[in-house]
Amino acid sequence: MRITVWNENVHEAQGDELVLSHYPDGIHGAIAAGIAPLLEDAEIRTATLQDPEHGLTEDVLAATDVLLWWGHIAHEQVSDEVVERVFQHVQAGMGLLVLHSGHYSKIFQRLLGSTASLLWRNEGERELVWTIDRTHPITQGIPDPIVIPRQEMYGEPFDIPTPDELLFVSNFAGGEVFRSGVTYRRGLGRIFYFSPGDQEYPVYHQAEIQQVLANGVRWAAPTRPRRNVTAIHKPEAGWFAAS
Amino acid sequence: MRITVWNENVHEAQGDELVLSHYPDGIHGAIAAGIAPLLEDAEIRTATLQDPEHGLTEDVLAATDVLLWWGHIAHEQVSDEVVERVFQHVQAGMGLLVLHSGHYSKIFQRLLGSTASLLWRNEGERELVWTIDRTHPITQGIPDPIVIPRQEMYGEPFDIPTPDELLFVSNFAGGEVFRSGVTYRRGLGRIFYFSPGDQEYPVYHQAEIQQVLANGVRWAAPTRPRRNVTAIHKPEAGWFAAS
Amino acid sequence: MRITVWNENVHEAQGDELVLSHYPDGIHGAIAAGIAPLLEDAEIRTATLQDPEHGLTEDVLAATDVLLWWGHIAHEQVSDEVVERVFQHVQAGMGLLVLHSGHYSKIFQRLLGSTASLLWRNEGERELVWTIDRTHPITQGIPDPIVIPRQEMYGEPFDIPTPDELLFVSNFAGGEVFRSGVTYRRGLGRIFYFSPGDQEYPVYHQAEIQQVLANGVRWAAPTRPRRNVTAIHKPEAGWFAAS
Amino acid sequence: MRITVWNENVHEAQGDELVLSHYPDGIHGAIAAGIAPLLEDAEIRTATLQDPEHGLTEDVLAATDVLLWWGHIAHEQVSDEVVERVFQHVQAGMGLLVLHSGHYSKIFQRLLGSTASLLWRNEGERELVWTIDRTHPITQGIPDPIVIPRQEMYGEPFDIPTPDELLFVSNFAGGEVFRSGVTYRRGLGRIFYFSPGDQEYPVYHQAEIQQVLANGVRWAAPTRPRRNVTAIHKPEAGWFAAS
Repeated sequence: MRITVWNENVHEAQGDELVLSHYPDGIHGAIAAGIAPLLEDAEIRTATLQDPEHGLTEDVLAATDVLLWWGHIAHEQVSDEVVERVFQHVQAGMGLLVLHSGHYSKIFQRLLGSTASLLWRNEGERELVWTIDRTHPITQGIPDPIVIPRQEMYGEPFDIPTPDELLFVSNFAGGEVFRSGVTYRRGLGRIFYFSPGDQEYPVYHQAEIQQVLANGVRWAAPTRPRRNVTAIHKPEAGWFAAS
Repeated sequence: MRITVWNENVHEAQGDELVLSHYPDGIHGAIAAGIAPLLEDAEIRTATLQDPEHGLTEDVLAATDVLLWWGHIAHEQVSDEVVERVFQHVQAGMGLLVLHSGHYSKIFQRLLGSTASLLWRNEGERELVWTIDRTHPITQGIPDPIVIPRQEMYGEPFDIPTPDELLFVSNFAGGEVFRSGVTYRRGLGRIFYFSPGDQEYPVYHQAEIQQVLANGVRWAAPTRPRRNVTAIHKPEAGWFAAS
Repeated sequence: MRITVWNENVHEAQGDELVLSHYPDGIHGAIAAGIAPLLEDAEIRTATLQDPEHGLTEDVLAATDVLLWWGHIAHEQVSDEVVERVFQHVQAGMGLLVLHSGHYSKIFQRLLGSTASLLWRNEGERELVWTIDRTHPITQGIPDPIVIPRQEMYGEPFDIPTPDELLFVSNFAGGEVFRSGVTYRRGLGRIFYFSPGDQEYPVYHQAEIQQVLANGVRWAAPTRPRRNVTAIHKPEAGWFAAS
Repeated sequence: MRITVWNENVHEAQGDELVLSHYPDGIHGAIAAGIAPLLEDAEIRTATLQDPEHGLTEDVLAATDVLLWWGHIAHEQVSDEVVERVFQHVQAGMGLLVLHSGHYSKIFQRLLGSTASLLWRNEGERELVWTIDRTHPITQGIPDPIVIPRQEMYGEPFDIPTPDELLFVSNFAGGEVFRSGVTYRRGLGRIFYFSPGDQEYPVYHQAEIQQVLANGVRWAAPTRPRRNVTAIHKPEAGWFAAS
């Protein structure tokens, strides 16, 4: 399994001290380090906005089974060409995990056909992540609830299409709720959105969060060869009728 | 529209003073009085466990478009024959609203094929009922969130099948979340489960709760003639092939 | 209710004799004439690709409750600006019916985040449209199946997201099946895709098809004021915690 | 993985020559032999109606990861006690595959809360089984469509709840369609219904059908320890509030 962890890497590149105190190797570095021991059969690389073509060239994507996406303040700096390239690879079967403020990324909005807007408030309040679907591989081995001591609040209404599967719902101390783990299929690709994780709190260092991400990667990995969904067979008249 | 509000009426019949302080005319009486002004075209009757055949004779059900069901401590006293009768009418198109602790009623378990078990705790804590589906007729005109000052907590995991539609999710002050408004179809019938409402708190006197129930009744009301779903057409061989 | 029937109107404008033999007033004219008697409370207007801004100005869309969309060979000629405008109105609550080869329209692909590719073959074969969801208002009063004597075949795999509701599935004489009636929600808007209807066959003159379209319009019509889903409330810290 | 293939075994026990010509070792024998080479890590046993407790004792079920169920003319002879036992094991996490005319079995109706009625006609017509969900593990490696030369027709309306996942839809030469592969979750258990397979036709000898069943078994196998879903935690007041 070949995994690419993408991060806009802007807080880090700007030298934000709070962010760097939690993530000295970048959020991408922390995510990669967190899931690596749980996915021993995986090759994990990272890529960032600052790389040529944001590190997401055709070659890189063609060699990626699952892409993880973290972005926050630089969504607009991601080139439309790269977004379209990722979109096509998802349609063809590449798995995609969209993380936290990545809900507002171009690629997530493009795949959902929705704004993905939500309520938010950053007061470092407690988030409890409750499992809704106890039969799903992504929720396997995850404590119910996950307790995140301090977090940014994301709340409903979350403007997303009805998910294919609702895996987690969060409670925030301030009173809100949020569909914090949802899945979608687009083309031959599987998509998992998971909201816990913020640059100001050390969420990606929690073992339970790392386990969810590793489970998500395994779930999203393609199980058949990648192919262009539009390259369809046009049956000739009477072929089936004659059989 | 013809509505029947069913209540086991046991707390009331036993003279429970707390319950009677909130519901001197019974929970069924309060629900009926609450929705009546919102459903001016409706005939509303009530029925209770203590009535002959629990007040749910074949004639009553045949003349009921939507049945509301409230039960708590006497689920086992409901006769299997009456449960089966209600089941058949739902299959044939009668609407059903299952309320609060009715999640453990025989009829709800029978329709879902699930235990409908859940977490619970009764400490009179605040419940916030958030709207998830903003396009649904049941959520129309409902404040987001509904604030219920004191309530029994119902929490996930709620052991129900994946709902056809997820309308509301509640936050409880103690930290839990709950899918408090969900819909299902069974046969030709529509089912709406709504959890707010308890015998110890005056929830059914809140205008927003009454509006949700009235919206639910309108949504669940059948739009086509009631009929036996098993009385199917068996097409003769070649009928379609020849057409 | 204010309805706008949009048609690219290219077959007609090019003087295609077969198309004009079925639809002398254009496909838009036939659709509008077909649903008008079934929607007596509606104002129905039409718009085409050739109109300034394709007839879909901000003023027209702001005064449209439900938009019907028919396109086939000129999807690429629809300006991105108009597509974006329609997209925003759907998010804000406008209903949308996408018809037949409109599956490949920019607006449908944009709303679904999918290619909407499918199998097809045009041999004028029989299509039978079977009702799957018998409780839905769109299927009310519709014969099961609808028999369309001669049609273009559309077949699975249909590359769309899992529908919110699956209403119709078609059988084609050549052996294929197709999810011919599906619904989605995006933002506050409701979307209904219905595949029967082609420029080479007089499908839109069938009474059952007209009834499905009229039912679809009633279902998709907004039930609350149109508003920008991104104009959200950002709750202040402690507001709910303090209540 | 421990698999139990259950068959009522009545056609066979009665010496039905047509059935025995296809299935000299019984339908259960043919299914077990068909999936065994595809599930090399599995222990496969069979059980029939005629065995004590129908071969489905508490010990057998406790040692079964996935149960396959085939029944046709003897549904009423299955004891309610055994049905309840199977029901409880599914809730606790045992996987279940329901096959063909098993749609009318007590256990399927009990789990769905539906009649599971359908159209049918037995004229030995061609069935084409089309894949709808191309991302699902059950459809992996399956030709699209599967061609079954002669089959009993099962048609819509199929009176089932909205499936969690729609995997296959069939076309019949006579003109009908049918949701021939659907999944559900109940409690911690996964359920897969697959309609191809009949006692009068050698369907279970087709390699593609065997592959679907093997894929279904792998998908339905539990991924966590079996446990009673009603044995829930009742959180004490203030526990979460205090954390």
